[in-house]
This record gives sequence, C-alpha cells and structure tokens, in this order.
Amino acid sequence: MKIIFVGATGTMGSYLVKALEKEHEVVRVASKGGDVTVDITSVASIEDMFRKIGPFDALISTAGPTFVGPWEKLDDKTFRQGVEGKMMGQINLVLIGQKYINPKGSFTLITGALTHEPQKNFANASAANGAVEGFVRGASIELKNGVRINAVSPTVIEDSPQYFPFFPGEIPTTMKQLEYAFRKSVFGSVTGMIIKP
Amino acid sequence: MKIIFVGATGTMGSYLVKALEKEHEVVRVASKGGDVTVDITSVASIEDMFRKIGPFDALISTAGPTFVGPWEKLDDKTFRQGVEGKMMGQINLVLIGQKYINPKGSFTLITGALTHEPQKNFANASAANGAVEGFVRGASIELKNGVRINAVSPTVIEDSPQYFPFFPGEIPTTMKQLEYAFRKSVFGSVTGMIIKP
Ligand SMILES: NC(=O)c1ccc[n+]([C@@H]2O[C@H](COP(=O)([O-])OP(=O)(O)OC[C@H]3O[C@@H](n4cnc5c(N)ncnc54)[C@H](OP(=O)(O)O)[C@@H]3O)[C@@H](O)[C@H]2O)c1
Ligand SMILES: NC(=O)c1ccc[n+]([C@@H]2O[C@H](COP(=O)([O-])OP(=O)(O)OC[C@H]3O[C@@H](n4cnc5c(N)ncnc54)[C@H](OP(=O)(O)O)[C@@H]3O)[C@@H](O)[C@H]2O)c1
Repeated sequence: MKIIFVGATGTMGSYLVKALEKEHEVVRVASKGGDVTVDITSVASIEDMFRKIGPFDALISTAGPTFVGPWEKLDDKTFRQGVEGKMMGQINLVLIGQKYINPKGSFTLITGALTHEPQKNFANASAANGAVEGFVRGASIELKNGVRINAVSPTVIEDSPQYFPFFPGEIPTTMKQLEYAFRKSVFGSVTGMIIKP
Repeated sequence: MKIIFVGATGTMGSYLVKALEKEHEVVRVASKGGDVTVDITSVASIEDMFRKIGPFDALISTAGPTFVGPWEKLDDKTFRQGVEGKMMGQINLVLIGQKYINPKGSFTLITGALTHEPQKNFANASAANGAVEGFVRGASIELKNGVRINAVSPTVIEDSPQYFPFFPGEIPTTMKQLEYAFRKSVFGSVTGMIIKP
C-alpha cells in the first residue's frame, strides 16, 4: 500500500512511520524535512504535494497546529492557528486529495480527546478537533469510489510527557494503542468513525 | 434581563424573540434590519455592536450562515462560508462579548444535529457545528465571573419545511421544543452543554 504520511517528523509521526514502513511504501511529509514538504495552511502547497506524489492508497495526517495558551490571549488572530492549521489544513488535504486517491483508498485525520473533554489553554484545539470530526462524518457519506475517512482521537500520548501537567488524571494513550487506532482506520473497513485508541 | 439576540429576523429568531420579549428586554440584531445591525463575519462590526448596546445579561445567536450544496462544489473557498459565518462569527461573539457581558451572564450559540448525523449537501455545516460545540466545551471552563456558555442543537425545525426533503426520516423539532432548549440555557444553570431540544 502506498501511504502518504503528513506530519511524519513529529512525535506521533516518527513512531507510526517506523511501524508502517516495514510493510508499506510510506511517503514521509512535513513542512520541513521528510521525503516531500508541504505547508498544509496553503492550498497551492497541498496541490503541489499531491501532484508530486501522484496516486496513493491512504493518507494519514498527524499534522495539526493549534494555539495553546492562556484564554486571555485567545482572539480572532490567535484562533486562526487552529483554523488554518489543524482544521482547514486537514480538511483541504481531503478536499484536494480526493482527486488523487485510488478507489477504496482512505483518509485518516488527527483530532483528540479535547473535543469532548476540555482542558484549560486548549479551547482552540477543542474547536479545531470538533470541526474535523464533524467534517469526517459529513465527508464519509459524500466521498466517491469507496473512499473512506476516519479520525483518530487520542488523549495525551505516552511520548509527550511535556503535556502531562496539562492533563491531570488522564491515563496517557500508549504508542501501541495509537498505532492500532490508525491501523483500524487504514486497513479496516469503517468510515465516518472517530476512533478512540 | 437584557438579552442580545443575533439572528433576530430569521426563522428561529422571529419565533424566539416573540416568546422572550414578553418578559425581557430583547435587543434584536441581524445583518439587515433589527434594532442594531452587525456582520458577524467582521470583528470590527462585532466590536461596534457591543459598544453600541453596552452591558447585557445574555446573548443568543441563531445566526449561522454555511455553504449548503453539492459536495463537488465544496472547496477551500466555499468552505469559508461556514468558517467565517457560523463558526468564527459565533466564536467571535463570545471572545469579544465576554468583555461586555454582566457577571453570571450567558452565551447561547446555535449548532444542529448535523454535527453527529450528517446529510448530503451539509458537510460544511457539520464542520462548523462541530467547531462551535468543541469551543463551547473549551470556553465553559475558561469564562470568568460565573459567565456560562451552551449551544442548542436541533434537527430540522417545524418552521423550515423547505429543508424537510434534505432530512428524510427526521421528526422536525417543534418551535416550542426549540424555545425551551434556549430557555434551559439562558435561565438555567448549566454550562458547556450541547442542548438537544
Ligand atoms: N502529543 C499528544 O499528546 C497529542 C494527544 C492528542 C492529540 N494530539 C494532536 O496530534 C497532532 C500531532 O501531535 P504530535 O505530538 O505528533 O505533534 P508534533 O510532534 O508537533 O508533530 C507535528 C507534525 O506535523 C508537521 N506540521 C506542523 N505544521 C505543519 C504544516 N503547516 N504543514 C505541514 N506539516 C506540518 C510537523 O512537521 P514540521 O515541524 O516540519 O512542520 C510534524 O511532522 C496535533 O494536532 C495534536 O494536537 C497530540
Ligand atoms: N432551520 C432549520 O431547520 C435549522 C435546523 C437546525 C439548525 N439550524 C441552524 O440554525 C441557524 C438559524 O437557522 P434559521 O433557519 O433561523 O436561519 P435564517 O432564517 O436564515 O436566519 C438567519 C438569521 O441570521 C442573520 N444573519 C445571517 N448572516 C449574518 C451575519 N453575517 N451577520 C449577522 N447576522 C446574520 C439573518 O439576518 P440577515 O438576513 O439580516 O443577515 C437572520 O436573522 C443556522 O445556522 C442553521 O444552520 C437550522
């Protein structure tokens, strides 16, 4: 299977790419580094990436920048980080990528537990996650040629200890659990699902 | 209670204003008509509206433009209708309005069943709704001085028969049910809740 992995150089990405590339052709994508670069906040850059890579079977995204910081700093401007990044960035990967994906291919996007379980400093991520999850459901009944779409929604992950203090009482998602959630989306048959590892 | 009603001239707005103004001071707001005008897609226009109206106890919004139409027409550009309108429009009403609202006041925003129950032609609304619902949860733990925030999420409403064909099998929400959902948010004590009439 040819898998485009956007966010390949990040915490989630490095672990997941290593697990998937044993059996699949993985094209590693990030804004800096990787096999191909893209800035998901730019429609032109996304078009360019798909043209370079050509037809593919699955796209995974773990690229989702948002504004993290005190509520007092949240305004129309800071809010745009999540709107242009995690939300429209990932949505445009699908709206544009559907022209390049093989029949029966799949899109798997990243959201997070913050959609339903808010934490201080993360309202921008809660909104971006909610948008992506709503979109995933809407897109799942519209995509053609058997193309599927899901989101993976973990709580704070094992390999991000720097976030633990912001998530009191959360049992971190292990990297193995995270991997299996992505496997369920990419290699299973579900669509329109928000997969909680 | 002094209630700012954004979307006062619409289908929901006209019914709800009539019900609420018997017992409360309602400031009717829309982009055309009403007591005060605002374009919620403009931060400057929202600032201007709050300055004109001054302190208030509750803000209700039923203003939520989105792109409704065939999936093939959905791209970064058409998607912005829901992003700037129903999503950022309503989010900015809160981010800016928190500076003007009285202690123990409330914000009540509009979303809809499409967040979780998609229909063809409405993926943009599913995303905007999801964003607003995520934001409502995030904001509910951040707002100061006892200020509350909720969303009302109805399915297609009784007074919008033009939408019935797009919602096969949906039992329309009655206007009375809709009114009571808003009453629960404005006059009750809940916060961070998505109220399904
Ligand atoms: N870490 C957690 O505990 C956790 C838990 C739940 C949900 N999440 C969500 O999961 C996502 C990924 O988390 P992570 O910890 O793996 O993040 P990360 O370590 O910061 O990695 C982000 C990846 O996305 C790429 N990226 C960022 N902005 C981009 C852009 N504009 N265009 C293209 N690529 C871009 C980065 O590459 P460049 O640096 O080259 O741009 C990097 O490869 C985030 O959305 C986060 O909110 C994380
Ligand atoms: N109708 C339904 O069956 C139903 C069911 C579930 C959810 N919803 C959601 O509920 C919301 C309201 O529905 P509705 O049927 O009452 O809509 P509507 O009849 O179209 O009314 C919309 C109201 O919002 C105002 N408005 C629109 N754009 C605005 C802007 N940029 N700035 C300020 N005000 C603006 C309109 O005034 P102007 O014309 O002067 O701009 C009008 O007062 C929508 O978001 C819709 O998605 C509707």
